[in-house]
Amino acid sequence: MTALDPAHPAHANGRHKPSVLPFGPVAADLDATDRVFASTLASYKTPIGGLVQHLKHYRGKRLRPTLLLLVARACGTVTPAHHTLGAVVEMIHTATLVHDDVLDEADTRRHVRTVNVEWGNKAAILFGDLLFTHAFHLSSTVDVRACQLIGEATNRVCAGELKQVSERGNLHLSEADYFQIIDGKTAALTEVSARMGALYAGAGDEVAEQLAAYGRNLGLAFQIADDLLDLVGSEQTAGKTLGTDLEQQKLTLPVIHALAKLSPAEANRLRDKLRTGDAGHRAHVASALAETGSFDYARRRADEFTRNARSALTCLPASECRTILEQLTEWSARREK
Amino acid sequence: MTALDPAHPAHANGRHKPSVLPFGPVAADLDATDRVFASTLASYKTPIGGLVQHLKHYRGKRLRPTLLLLVARACGTVTPAHHTLGAVVEMIHTATLVHDDVLDEADTRRHVRTVNVEWGNKAAILFGDLLFTHAFHLSSTVDVRACQLIGEATNRVCAGELKQVSERGNLHLSEADYFQIIDGKTAALTEVSARMGALYAGAGDEVAEQLAAYGRNLGLAFQIADDLLDLVGSEQTAGKTLGTDLEQQKLTLPVIHALAKLSPAEANRLRDKLRTGDAGHRAHVASALAETGSFDYARRRADEFTRNARSALTCLPASECRTILEQLTEWSARREK
Repeated sequence: MTALDPAHPAHANGRHKPSVLPFGPVAADLDATDRVFASTLASYKTPIGGLVQHLKHYRGKRLRPTLLLLVARACGTVTPAHHTLGAVVEMIHTATLVHDDVLDEADTRRHVRTVNVEWGNKAAILFGDLLFTHAFHLSSTVDVRACQLIGEATNRVCAGELKQVSERGNLHLSEADYFQIIDGKTAALTEVSARMGALYAGAGDEVAEQLAAYGRNLGLAFQIADDLLDLVGSEQTAGKTLGTDLEQQKLTLPVIHALAKLSPAEANRLRDKLRTGDAGHRAHVASALAETGSFDYARRRADEFTRNARSALTCLPASECRTILEQLTEWSARREK
Repeated sequence: MTALDPAHPAHANGRHKPSVLPFGPVAADLDATDRVFASTLASYKTPIGGLVQHLKHYRGKRLRPTLLLLVARACGTVTPAHHTLGAVVEMIHTATLVHDDVLDEADTRRHVRTVNVEWGNKAAILFGDLLFTHAFHLSSTVDVRACQLIGEATNRVCAGELKQVSERGNLHLSEADYFQIIDGKTAALTEVSARMGALYAGAGDEVAEQLAAYGRNLGLAFQIADDLLDLVGSEQTAGKTLGTDLEQQKLTLPVIHALAKLSPAEANRLRDKLRTGDAGHRAHVASALAETGSFDYARRRADEFTRNARSALTCLPASECRTILEQLTEWSARREK
C-alpha cells in the first residue's frame, strides 16, 4: 500500500539476512511471529496453498511487528500475545499489499510476479479478503481488546485508502485531506502496533497512549518521506520522471504546498500540467515544486513528526530498545530508498 | 455472492414492503438490526458517505439476520447483542456482494448500478474491505466469542469463494470439491447466524450445535437450489440459455453428476461442449443433464439437506418461530426465483 517496506534484495528469496531495520534484540521474537503467521495459513492445500506459499516472496522488513516487539521489550516483557499480534498486523499489511497490487495493476513485487498477475485479479481480491479474515480470527485468540483495537485500526486503514482512491484526480485536495488520508492508510497500523506492544507488556494507559502517539507520528513521517521519494526524481533529474503518484493524479504534500503558494493563475497553470501528465510538462512541475520550497516544506513536516515521535519516547526508561526506537524515527523520515 | 437473496422489486427502492421471507415475529428486531447497520457507517462524509448511501439499494431479504433473530426468539429472548450480530452478518454478506460484483464485472444489482460501475473497481474493492473491517469491529463490541465465531465463519466464506474462483475452468471438479465450495461460500454464514442466534439467547451447547446444523443444512439446500435455478433455463427452454455458471465454466452439482453418469467418451464430449460454451451446444448440454437425471439428483440432494435442517429443529419446543424456521427450509430448496 504505502511501500512502507521498500524492496530489499536481501529479502527477495525469503531467506533471513540482515535488514537495514535494526531489530537485533527482537530477532528471536520476530521469528516466533513469522511462525504464527505461517502456521495460521499452513492447513490450506492446493489451490489456495499455492497462493499462501507465494507470500514468502512478499516478506519485507516487517516494520509493524518489529515496532510492536521493540515497544513491548522497551516497556517490559515480550509475551506469546505479542507474537500473535505481530502476525496479525503483518497479515493485515499483507492483505492491503495484495489488494493494492490489484488496484495499481502492479505486475511485480519484490522481484516476483504479483498474485494478481500470477493467479488473476479475482483470486487476488479473494486472497486479500482471506488474509483480512484470518488476521481478525487470529486477534480473537488473544482477547476482545485486541479485536477492538484491530477493528478500529483497520477501519481507519480502509477509510484512508478509500478516500485516497476517491480523491484521485482532485487537484484541489487540501492539506487537511492529505493528512486524513495518510493518517488512515499508514499511521493507523503503526499506531496500533506500538499501542498493542505497550499494552500487552503491561504498560499503563498513559504510557500506552504515548507509545501510540510514537507509532502514529512515525507512520506520518514515514509516509511523507515515501511520498517525497516518489517525487524526488522530478527534482534531481529536472523532470525526467514525475513519480507514479502524479501519474495517477494523486496529490501529495509537496504538490499541495506548491499549489497553495503559487498565485491562483500560476496554480491553475500547474493544475493544467498535472492534468495532462505528459513528460514534456514534468520540468515545469519540478521547477514549480523547487521554486516554492515545497520539497523543503515536506521535509520539515516529516521532521516535525519525527521529533514528536522521539519526544513521546521520553516516557520510557533508557534501554537498548528505546534507543532503537529513536533511531527508527531517523530512518523513517530520511530514507533514500 | 451467492444470490442468496434474489432481486425482489419490492426492495428496489429500499422501502419496507412485505417480503416472501416470513419474518413477522421479528420484524421490529430486524428494524433494530437495520439501525445498528446504518449507525455503524453513519459518520462517513463525502466521498465515502456516497458509497454508504448507495447500500440502501442493496438491501434484500436480509436472510441471515432474519435467521439469527428467528432462532434467538425460538430459543429464548432477543437481546441487543442479537441486533448487533444481525448487523454483523448482514454487513459481511454485503461486503461479499460488493466484491462479487467486481469479480463478475456486474453492472446492475437490484435494478441500480453496482458500486464498481458507479465508482470504479478500485473504490469497490476498498469499500468491500471497509465493510469487512466494520463488521469485525462491530462484533468486538459484543464479546470475544462473537469475534471468534465471526472470524472462523468468514475464513470459511473466503476460502470457499477463493476455491471456487481457482477451480473455474476445471471440468473435472469432484462432487466433494463442489460441496467444499458451497459449504464455505454459503453455509458458513447461515450456520454461524443460527449458532449465534441460539448462543446469545442462552441456549446450551447442544441446542446451539443443533441450530448450527440447521443453518448449515439450510445454506447447502439454498445454494443447490440457487445453482439449479441458474441452469434451469437450459432444461425448460431446450438450450436457449445455459446459465451464467456454465458460461464462466463453474461446475455445479447437476453437471458434476451428469459427467459422472456418462461414459468416459460421452463425458469428454460434454466437456468439449462446455469448454466452447457457444449457444449451438447448449441443447446438447441440456439434454445430457436431463437424460442422466441430473436435475432430479440435485433436487433430491437439496431435499436431503432440507430434511436434515428440519430434523435439527426438533430440539426446540413448538413455537411460532420454530414453525417459521421449518417453512424456511421449504422456501430455500424450492424457490422458483
